[in-house]
Amino acid sequence: MFDQLLAQKAGKNLSNLREKKPLIHNITNYVVMNYTANALLACGASPVMAHASEEVVEMVSFAGALVLNIGTLTPYWIDSMLRAGKRANELNVPIILDPVGSGATKLRTDSAKKLIDELSISVVRGNASEVLSLAHEGSRTKGVDSVHSVDDAADSALILAKELETTLAITGEVDLITDGERIYRVFNGHELMGFVTGTGCTASVIIGAFLAIDRDPVEATTTALAYFGLAGERAAKTAQAPGSFQVAMLDALYTIDEKQMKEGAKIQSQ
Amino acid sequence: MFDQLLAQKAGKNLSNLREKKPLIHNITNYVVMNYTANALLACGASPVMAHASEEVVEMVSFAGALVLNIGTLTPYWIDSMLRAGKRANELNVPIILDPVGSGATKLRTDSAKKLIDELSISVVRGNASEVLSLAHEGSRTKGVDSVHSVDDAADSALILAKELETTLAITGEVDLITDGERIYRVFNGHELMGFVTGTGCTASVIIGAFLAIDRDPVEATTTALAYFGLAGERAAKTAQAPGSFQVAMLDALYTIDEKQMKEGAKIQSQ
Amino acid sequence: MFDQLLAQKAGKNLSNLREKKPLIHNITNYVVMNYTANALLACGASPVMAHASEEVVEMVSFAGALVLNIGTLTPYWIDSMLRAGKRANELNVPIILDPVGSGATKLRTDSAKKLIDELSISVVRGNASEVLSLAHEGSRTKGVDSVHSVDDAADSALILAKELETTLAITGEVDLITDGERIYRVFNGHELMGFVTGTGCTASVIIGAFLAIDRDPVEATTTALAYFGLAGERAAKTAQAPGSFQVAMLDALYTIDEKQMKEGAKIQSQ
Repeated sequence: MFDQLLAQKAGKNLSNLREKKPLIHNITNYVVMNYTANALLACGASPVMAHASEEVVEMVSFAGALVLNIGTLTPYWIDSMLRAGKRANELNVPIILDPVGSGATKLRTDSAKKLIDELSISVVRGNASEVLSLAHEGSRTKGVDSVHSVDDAADSALILAKELETTLAITGEVDLITDGERIYRVFNGHELMGFVTGTGCTASVIIGAFLAIDRDPVEATTTALAYFGLAGERAAKTAQAPGSFQVAMLDALYTIDEKQMKEGAKIQSQ
Repeated sequence: MFDQLLAQKAGKNLSNLREKKPLIHNITNYVVMNYTANALLACGASPVMAHASEEVVEMVSFAGALVLNIGTLTPYWIDSMLRAGKRANELNVPIILDPVGSGATKLRTDSAKKLIDELSISVVRGNASEVLSLAHEGSRTKGVDSVHSVDDAADSALILAKELETTLAITGEVDLITDGERIYRVFNGHELMGFVTGTGCTASVIIGAFLAIDRDPVEATTTALAYFGLAGERAAKTAQAPGSFQVAMLDALYTIDEKQMKEGAKIQSQ
Repeated sequence: MFDQLLAQKAGKNLSNLREKKPLIHNITNYVVMNYTANALLACGASPVMAHASEEVVEMVSFAGALVLNIGTLTPYWIDSMLRAGKRANELNVPIILDPVGSGATKLRTDSAKKLIDELSISVVRGNASEVLSLAHEGSRTKGVDSVHSVDDAADSALILAKELETTLAITGEVDLITDGERIYRVFNGHELMGFVTGTGCTASVIIGAFLAIDRDPVEATTTALAYFGLAGERAAKTAQAPGSFQVAMLDALYTIDEKQMKEGAKIQSQ
């Protein structure tokens, strides 16, 4: 039922990550900075948070991936994201964008679209309404309000990924990953993840870490989300409430090994 | 000894909160953003942190309550609080103010007073010195330096609540809640709460969540503080030091049910 | 083998800290604000985070120590650090600087050097590359690239401490503390500390707390690092992965008593 080759790759990516310990440059929101830095350390990567316009161009040059997250954005931060992103593009450092709250306010929607327009972004991860809010006027997607099922979301995501020329990851009970051609689904995860703030943001930094290892954006994202979801499943075995669950997630990110990853991944190809 | 009707209402408010999952808009300090977001999720609400002047007016229009917290204030943030607050007042979205450090520096005292002057605020929560620092010149309150007992604080709070036309919550070993007419005391809580940063700020966001459910500011605040204090008591049963206690608090906020709340509330009316 | 007098002083400093509960003023990075505030509370101090240029001069006047940390710096924050630092110097409030990432970007290196040039700083704590990046042109130190061993680092640190007229603490598997004359080494610690974000930043705030108690910068720093490392050792007895370890560190900071500190300190004088 589940894709064995990708499960194997998930395990391999994890081992490579821990060996190479790539630096992940984050320009992200205040709420999740601590937790996402800890998640990156737990999975074997090396996090740096730097947002000053005076240094982001220099900092991103050391990075294996750049994570842009608009969760507590102001125009200053968006400007720094653009500067860092342009340099990342020049250096072929992959970028992942987390368009937190896009669709909710004009500032967020406009900022997310601007980042996508001006940068070449490898992966965009969000929930269905965030991702689908990124469609330009005239898009052939149906729009958030018309998405009533996972299948609707898949159809829209396929079209939108082609239009935006990027890989889209719509995370939820089932995660959907597509570049407009291939489409994968990840069934790992646990409902308690929804009771911890920044779970989505953390998924995004894990994707960033995997992108630094695996330059196929679709497979890097898919394997990263299987790993992150598996950590949730394992955390739920020892923790039944969100405080201890949040702690157990970090523990699981640290302890899952290649074999467990390979056996635990629940990835479905189209 | 304890008020049974309010204990019952505490349980009801908690159940309603979990059912309605109101969005709570926070403009708050960097230190507690993560923990208060997690506390809101654990109790059943839906947190958003947004401070950009370009978006706060739009964001607050989706909210069930607005929490303003000056813990790491700068003039930019105060301006955003004023913008969001004015819109909240227009839309009848209740506002809770946490005047962190008011009385300690001129910037904090002036900012807190400005927010109270220019906005209609439902509840102000702080410790005794923060709350009593809000008195205008010419206030009939005795001032912080003259408050030597809980009874002194109660007298001053009653006067000040009338003068400021708001509900005041002075939290401490015993919490005191008054709108200048009614006065309630909450005896729930545990001393380890004082060893976790942002405990007061977290009490404020829980009050915000209850305000979104219960439009009587005095009863919303009183029941929220009983719930928050009960979570502390339950956390202390499994955790004897602040690290694990902080985690257990989130677990307790998530697991306390309506019946436990009703039986555990220690609320005293005047 | 280990210095018994300093071990005894470590225990005494800890007890004094818990008795006096000094206010520690932090101008620090977003990532670690919550954790370092909790660490300060756990060890018995009273943290305040305040960075607004309008209030730092006033706030630092209440403080027992000032902690400057450039982890997520912008020019605005550096300016506030200078304002607070100048007032701290006037009032004889000790300053500790954590030059996070100095050597990695020009903004960080320049900012750290500017703080050292314009302020009288009691202690600088960082890893070897951060600390050695602070050497002026023409320094007699060999530079980071020539440091291949702990002994190399010790030689460079001795020279640099004299040149900068401060106490340097280079933390790592073994911590090295010197004012250019005396040199101490601390062998406490655990490898899991490297998997928690802001461990170094937290060491710095603990040093700040000890500086508020013990005005000998070398001994305050040495005893603080022994205490912090001992907390890591004790945490590792109950926690084997970074999420639970981070929590157990806070618990250990809270529970270690004077006797345990005295018996557990692993301090070596030259």
